[in-house]
Amino acid sequence: MANDKKFVEQITSMEEDFAKWYTDIVKKADLIDYSSVKGCMIIRPYGYAIWENIQKILDARFKESGVENVYMPMFIPESLLTKEKEHVEGFAPEVAWVTHGGSERLTERLCVRPTSETLFCEHFANIIKSYRDLPMVYNQWCSVVRWEKTTRPFLRSREFLWQEGHTMHRTAKEAEARTVQMLNLYADFFEQDLGMPVVRGQKTEKEKFAGAKATYTVEALMHDGKALQGGTSHNFGTGFSEAFGIQFLDSDNTLKYPHETSWVVSTRIIGGIIMTHGDDSGLVLPPAVAPIQVVVIPVQMHKAGVLEAAQKIADTLKEAGIRVKLDDSDQLPGWKFSEYEMKGVPLRVEIGPRDLQENKCVIVRRDNREKSFISLDTLVESVQGGLEALRQAIYEKALKNREERTFTATTMEELVEIASTKSGYIRAMWCGDLACELKLKEEADVSSRCIPFGGQPVGTTCVCCGREAKKLVLWGKAY
Amino acid sequence: MANDKKFVEQITSMEEDFAKWYTDIVKKADLIDYSSVKGCMIIRPYGYAIWENIQKILDARFKESGVENVYMPMFIPESLLTKEKEHVEGFAPEVAWVTHGGSERLTERLCVRPTSETLFCEHFANIIKSYRDLPMVYNQWCSVVRWEKTTRPFLRSREFLWQEGHTMHRTAKEAEARTVQMLNLYADFFEQDLGMPVVRGQKTEKEKFAGAKATYTVEALMHDGKALQGGTSHNFGTGFSEAFGIQFLDSDNTLKYPHETSWVVSTRIIGGIIMTHGDDSGLVLPPAVAPIQVVVIPVQMHKAGVLEAAQKIADTLKEAGIRVKLDDSDQLPGWKFSEYEMKGVPLRVEIGPRDLQENKCVIVRRDNREKSFISLDTLVESVQGGLEALRQAIYEKALKNREERTFTATTMEELVEIASTKSGYIRAMWCGDLACELKLKEEADVSSRCIPFGGQPVGTTCVCCGREAKKLVLWGKAY
Repeated sequence: MANDKKFVEQITSMEEDFAKWYTDIVKKADLIDYSSVKGCMIIRPYGYAIWENIQKILDARFKESGVENVYMPMFIPESLLTKEKEHVEGFAPEVAWVTHGGSERLTERLCVRPTSETLFCEHFANIIKSYRDLPMVYNQWCSVVRWEKTTRPFLRSREFLWQEGHTMHRTAKEAEARTVQMLNLYADFFEQDLGMPVVRGQKTEKEKFAGAKATYTVEALMHDGKALQGGTSHNFGTGFSEAFGIQFLDSDNTLKYPHETSWVVSTRIIGGIIMTHGDDSGLVLPPAVAPIQVVVIPVQMHKAGVLEAAQKIADTLKEAGIRVKLDDSDQLPGWKFSEYEMKGVPLRVEIGPRDLQENKCVIVRRDNREKSFISLDTLVESVQGGLEALRQAIYEKALKNREERTFTATTMEELVEIASTKSGYIRAMWCGDLACELKLKEEADVSSRCIPFGGQPVGTTCVCCGREAKKLVLWGKAY
Repeated sequence: MANDKKFVEQITSMEEDFAKWYTDIVKKADLIDYSSVKGCMIIRPYGYAIWENIQKILDARFKESGVENVYMPMFIPESLLTKEKEHVEGFAPEVAWVTHGGSERLTERLCVRPTSETLFCEHFANIIKSYRDLPMVYNQWCSVVRWEKTTRPFLRSREFLWQEGHTMHRTAKEAEARTVQMLNLYADFFEQDLGMPVVRGQKTEKEKFAGAKATYTVEALMHDGKALQGGTSHNFGTGFSEAFGIQFLDSDNTLKYPHETSWVVSTRIIGGIIMTHGDDSGLVLPPAVAPIQVVVIPVQMHKAGVLEAAQKIADTLKEAGIRVKLDDSDQLPGWKFSEYEMKGVPLRVEIGPRDLQENKCVIVRRDNREKSFISLDTLVESVQGGLEALRQAIYEKALKNREERTFTATTMEELVEIASTKSGYIRAMWCGDLACELKLKEEADVSSRCIPFGGQPVGTTCVCCGREAKKLVLWGKAY
């Protein structure tokens, strides 16, 4: 166990320094590596496998809901980017510019896409003619670039991977329905597959996407009480359609502007998983996206029959569709235990000579380290049960954390007090004015995370100015 | 059928103008669209679905062979790109340069990856320490950029999608084995899944990849007799390892340079499929990658029971794992027939009132338009049989085309004569000198496609200089 101890000691404790704990994990769990490209990350096989699992689940659900995948160019000519005024103001300050092709200076510089509304709209203008062409429900999986000053792996980097859905609809009602549908799809994915409880709500004018009429969001609360925007779904109305001259001939024979939506999740999700479920031994991965769901570790491997039994366990689980790894390397079991705890593998199966005699094995859950001795005859059911129990338990734990970290403030003093002594969501009423939102940022260093759907009022007056309140807002500090 | 006729007439005939026929197809089959980004293409849903099927098949085979996926940054600092001398000379003239982030000039300009050897090597230098870390068998799916002067959809564009495998090995032998293994994997994919016969061989010094010790290739011959390089697999030896200082401690306790390979296929494959199998009615897609394998078209749709029967056929086929589409739109059957012929759907199932009475339907094969009347009781077997028959038939047809277009030349006069009057491969002996290779280019406008593995000599002297011949070479004109 000497080895074991040493390995675990390499991570900073979360209580001591959450930011450093995070950075330690992304490196020690082999999720990423740095390169000489400042602000960009290398996503290593273990990290990329998590992203592939995320993609697989979401992509299947997208397609079930009628989404078609496409691929747009990664470059946007400057003149195209600047076509929608609010949009370009939001993005121009943080784009990377290509100015030369080979040794020649380009006649017009191109930005590397920070997002692709403009490209999609140019394409839509080309291909949408009639109401029969609608709805058009497109998505692309790609990487985007934003020239951030300060970066952190998965949470904020100059290049990151994402999907961006872009849809066009005949009516405002249909566009709104798609915006909400995709938000709910994200919310279900976060809650059911990632074990991350989320709040569904609307962004304020200040926080919404550049060019959108309305931005909806799923917000998750991290272990340290800071918020993470998990996914967003935007209703653009006809703003881009008008800017790009996209019109369709409706059945009443008049030309109309279609209504647009877009919706996005990114590799940030991986940062969210780490900060929601991780602990001082490393990652804790939700089974749905874990590259390895079960690791089988033979104990006293050299004893007769042990390795064969471990192999048989692995084979049986694999056959049942479980992602399993047998580690029969010559490292000590204790080292292996630590290694797979660091990597957040949901279940560990141990088998040694005595277990073998008794036709059983040991299952250890990653989240609470609970050990169960189970019969090899019920191996698959026990493992499936264990994975499901872990999925529920990590959700419950995250929900409890959020509940304990959700506070209510009815006065500015209360709000400032909470913001300066605690970390989490603050529920408080808001009049709807930007001035109050800015004042909360200035005095309490919190931003509006969202106006939760169906949020129950906690008063009648704005926590800041005392005038009539329009909305309940969740305030907090965010990644 | 008026509609039908009109639709088909929109494509240029292949015999009349092969290049225009190609461009017509990529547009009319809805594979791509152009955008305001010069030299880049929009891959539309139908085109992208073909790429997704290609990815799915290859990725599964890669993983079976031990490949792990990663993601590298899309930018390469200029100093990193220039680390391996031959490599930078090959790529620097055609890269896109990012010079500004937001409004600030970068201290060092970054190129958008034309290929990622340099990034992988920098990473390998970081993570490879011991022989226990080897082999490292990585791949990434991404887009790359090369600032081409003249572009054509799928065949040559400024941005394209590809996979690039990069592996590191303990011994030269193991690296060579991986290089060949991946070439064979590609060849099998082309021949078995895409119905495209390929020649496996080695590139000459002149044609090999910048920085490689040896480049192997699978070469396919298009309908018009021009060659297409389908996929390449490179053995780099220790060239990059030395340039990047990648060393591992071997079991004999000495530091050694690992041996590297890389292997690549791209969206060019889609261009190859079009030009191998397409005809004057449009695309012909190999079933393995066809987004729709079977289209079901109800005839006299308004008659009692027809639509229900068509739906049942579609459901039955879907249940059997076949990608099927029922077109119950209000277009005329003739229009639909043309539309799905244009899109290259392998099989069409027609069902009308009389078929219904007789418990049968009609299957029409896309490649030869052969009609069969089959019992609905054996629907699934008949459709599976039809798909398999088409797969074999398009392979045979392409093989026949290649055989008919493979010529032999033993003198320069013969070679020039063939090259100026015919289109295809020319088998001719070569002394191994660059001068002769250049002369063939100058006098016959052909390049060396490859030195086929196991190629049988067609003489003993170089077709160009008359000195002793070292190799049989396939010469040709290429895309």
